[in-house]
Amino acid sequence: MYTLSQLQKKIPGSEIIHCEQPDIVKIENIITLHQDLPNSLSYASDKSYLKNALECKATVVMLPKELGEKVNRPTLLVPNVDFALIEILNLYFPPEKPKGERGEWLVIKPGAEIGENTNLGNFVSIGENTKIGKNCIISDGVKIGRNVRIGDDARIGPNCVLFDGVRIGDRFTCFGNTTIGGDGFRFVESNRIQYKIPQVGSVWIGDDVEIGSNTSIDRGGIDDTVIDDGTKMDNDVQIAHNVKIGKGVIVAGATAIAGSAVIEDYCKISGACAIADHITLPSGTMVAGGSGLRNTPPKADLYAGWDWNLTIREFQKFRANLKHMLSLNLIVRRIKDLEEKLGIPDKK
Amino acid sequence: MYTLSQLQKKIPGSEIIHCEQPDIVKIENIITLHQDLPNSLSYASDKSYLKNALECKATVVMLPKELGEKVNRPTLLVPNVDFALIEILNLYFPPEKPKGERGEWLVIKPGAEIGENTNLGNFVSIGENTKIGKNCIISDGVKIGRNVRIGDDARIGPNCVLFDGVRIGDRFTCFGNTTIGGDGFRFVESNRIQYKIPQVGSVWIGDDVEIGSNTSIDRGGIDDTVIDDGTKMDNDVQIAHNVKIGKGVIVAGATAIAGSAVIEDYCKISGACAIADHITLPSGTMVAGGSGLRNTPPKADLYAGWDWNLTIREFQKFRANLKHMLSLNLIVRRIKDLEEKLGIPDKK
Amino acid sequence: MYTLSQLQKKIPGSEIIHCEQPDIVKIENIITLHQDLPNSLSYASDKSYLKNALECKATVVMLPKELGEKVNRPTLLVPNVDFALIEILNLYFPPEKPKGERGEWLVIKPGAEIGENTNLGNFVSIGENTKIGKNCIISDGVKIGRNVRIGDDARIGPNCVLFDGVRIGDRFTCFGNTTIGGDGFRFVESNRIQYKIPQVGSVWIGDDVEIGSNTSIDRGGIDDTVIDDGTKMDNDVQIAHNVKIGKGVIVAGATAIAGSAVIEDYCKISGACAIADHITLPSGTMVAGGSGLRNTPPKADLYAGWDWNLTIREFQKFRANLKHMLSLNLIVRRIKDLEEKLGIPDKK
Repeated sequence: MYTLSQLQKKIPGSEIIHCEQPDIVKIENIITLHQDLPNSLSYASDKSYLKNALECKATVVMLPKELGEKVNRPTLLVPNVDFALIEILNLYFPPEKPKGERGEWLVIKPGAEIGENTNLGNFVSIGENTKIGKNCIISDGVKIGRNVRIGDDARIGPNCVLFDGVRIGDRFTCFGNTTIGGDGFRFVESNRIQYKIPQVGSVWIGDDVEIGSNTSIDRGGIDDTVIDDGTKMDNDVQIAHNVKIGKGVIVAGATAIAGSAVIEDYCKISGACAIADHITLPSGTMVAGGSGLRNTPPKADLYAGWDWNLTIREFQKFRANLKHMLSLNLIVRRIKDLEEKLGIPDKK
Repeated sequence: MYTLSQLQKKIPGSEIIHCEQPDIVKIENIITLHQDLPNSLSYASDKSYLKNALECKATVVMLPKELGEKVNRPTLLVPNVDFALIEILNLYFPPEKPKGERGEWLVIKPGAEIGENTNLGNFVSIGENTKIGKNCIISDGVKIGRNVRIGDDARIGPNCVLFDGVRIGDRFTCFGNTTIGGDGFRFVESNRIQYKIPQVGSVWIGDDVEIGSNTSIDRGGIDDTVIDDGTKMDNDVQIAHNVKIGKGVIVAGATAIAGSAVIEDYCKISGACAIADHITLPSGTMVAGGSGLRNTPPKADLYAGWDWNLTIREFQKFRANLKHMLSLNLIVRRIKDLEEKLGIPDKK
Repeated sequence: MYTLSQLQKKIPGSEIIHCEQPDIVKIENIITLHQDLPNSLSYASDKSYLKNALECKATVVMLPKELGEKVNRPTLLVPNVDFALIEILNLYFPPEKPKGERGEWLVIKPGAEIGENTNLGNFVSIGENTKIGKNCIISDGVKIGRNVRIGDDARIGPNCVLFDGVRIGDRFTCFGNTTIGGDGFRFVESNRIQYKIPQVGSVWIGDDVEIGSNTSIDRGGIDDTVIDDGTKMDNDVQIAHNVKIGKGVIVAGATAIAGSAVIEDYCKISGACAIADHITLPSGTMVAGGSGLRNTPPKADLYAGWDWNLTIREFQKFRANLKHMLSLNLIVRRIKDLEEKLGIPDKK
């Protein structure tokens, strides 16, 4: 627990206003603008929430510096609210530091190596010749196959499964029940029987990647499925075999990316999207929530809508014309009336 | 196993017709109208299945009272077929009663409390200071974090994961591989690097909630993700952080609800739907299967279609006009012909 | 590791061309056309990749016989590249053969039977009276309920869950965190309370079925959910209760099939699709990626698009008319101009 003054000292460039004794104002709770807890700090990232911030029940609000003149209550002004919030949350909720703890009922196969300070939870199995880096937290029930590589500082949540040969960089995070390295989905048909093509590639994941819960990432057919540095993926995402995801990509929840699609660096795909197989999203492409892309878009842009490959501007036109679509029958009727009036014979 | 007479006595207000010796008619199998098993009872909830009910191979059919006059075969007439079916199925397939059994290879951390009669399966881990109520069944492989609260009469299926601090009311049910309390998906970008905002809220689940298999429910960022009393959720559902789901809500399979959406009481969201972030579904809103809502709808209604925010009536108009959309090029051609005939110059 | 000559002898009807000493050409790596590894064999299934095959860096390329005349580099000509590839991959990556190994921390309940040579991984639990065939691999963390039947040669991936009474044929495969036999999602409402209808059917799966990771297959309400012989299903698929899937069906990733839908034999449903409840896809129906079907289609065809029940040809017309939809307001304007010119009064 910190006083307001102590917090202020942790945030470079910050300033306290309208507070007479910041040394004795205790901040015990970090809250949202609609919560009501004593000794609390709330926050608003920009002026769109200014009114709520002025009216909220928090003891102190944290706001961006440029809003300082509009405030008349105890306020912590900071250069960037989001980054200050990260700082403060890490103070109040310090991330768990692994100390080399071992859970019960472990299976560590010959040749497996576990780095310094890495925690292993209960019911964990680690296959032959798998190497796990230092300062990792491998949670209860995680099943790791053979010849897997995991870098330093990983956080692998309960009951996740990493199949043989998966390679992951440093600072990897994933949550519960996620599966990495199951076989790609590829069959050849003959006489109505589907013959499986062995999936002998693997999954390569770079540094600083986060993956949510109940997400599946398939191994490649021959070469690897790739998820490059800094990419963040949410829950319930399906990544098919041989997908190549670049650096710093965002993939929100319940999105599916089909086989061999290429998602170039810094793309942002919102939730509940579908990306077709073998297409390429140019670097920086954004896809609105609930949108589908069936074709490679001509250039990086914000695309929206499911069946259309439309940019957001085109999609907005589409939506604006919706009322006409609902009455196309009347439009056709009017044309027919005009044709009759002019003696143009019926086309049908 | 019961005779028809015995069954009849279990269903208040029921009556047997066209059956001479209901005391010796044994009902061994509860079947659907298209199955064929001896000593069986089948059922139809309303008159739309009456013909099938009259022709089916069951020994006895169960029908609503108001259909009694249309029947000429051994029939159990009941006030409400669905509720009678629940009664009968619970007789033939009595739910398992926990008796305080303990599986093998358990990890119960200090401060954890397990209520009377609660069963713990095999390979279960329960974190520090977690409290589980009485008469629960915690299945094999369930991983429960620290400071979790679970009320009485819970049924938690195999390999489910509950992260630290999740709080759940009484009579909770979930099936396999479901994950509750993984981090919300929230990053702040600076220089193309995504910085994680710590997710320090939790998940609060009320009484009488059921959740399916392979579903993910994220913890809140600061305050909680909420799922209120009596809400039922299917498999493969994705609930993002800070979603607030009211009482008695239905969310069918493969639906995704994005961050901070509010689903008010008694909404019914069918399968394969997507609900955008930060929008509110007014109490009682219904969403047809495979539909998306990107905006807060103006009022409770039945919405349908993916990209449109249309009510079902508008959506039906849309579908009815589809044939015109497929030939809009011809419609435009006809307008151009009219314009030429009238000497209106080409607009392009 | 094999020489090119040795490989050629494994593929009936194959032939080596443009290679002087195939007995000393070693093939150590099987690669895709864009990889670059020494002593390697790459492949192209048809002429669309011929140019890439001629230019690729592999030591040897494998091509269909009919392309033999167009090649001027060391080539293995084969009757069918896909099947030759399966042959070669199985040589280089021979599937694991179970030998009756037992992992640690097993729970095998009374009456359970495990067939000859079947491997059980670590942390596996097998319920009362469950019978598992021979030559199976049951991976770490798999939880199998009571009275389950699994045929011979199954491969069940880590942390999969099979609920009580599930019956599966021979040569079954599934990957990680898949759940089979959770309750169907069926409630009856009274006074805004949802009452659960007990789900007492089960899941019946035929021979040669493959299922991916994080997929959910619900048990039937009264009779079974059925997945017939030779059907292949990908990751993150949701199969609701009482769905009947025929033989040789393909269901790609992130597709959801709602309750009681019937998918007849040899249907092919691509990824990210939704199939409504109670509809029937006639045998051989195909559904393009990201498509939804709300109604039973009139006949087997290739359907595409989410909200429309359109065949692919109709869908293409729809897409072709998209530009007109974006400017329907202008089209309506033009009609109004015509009406004015002709003195037709405003309809509104």
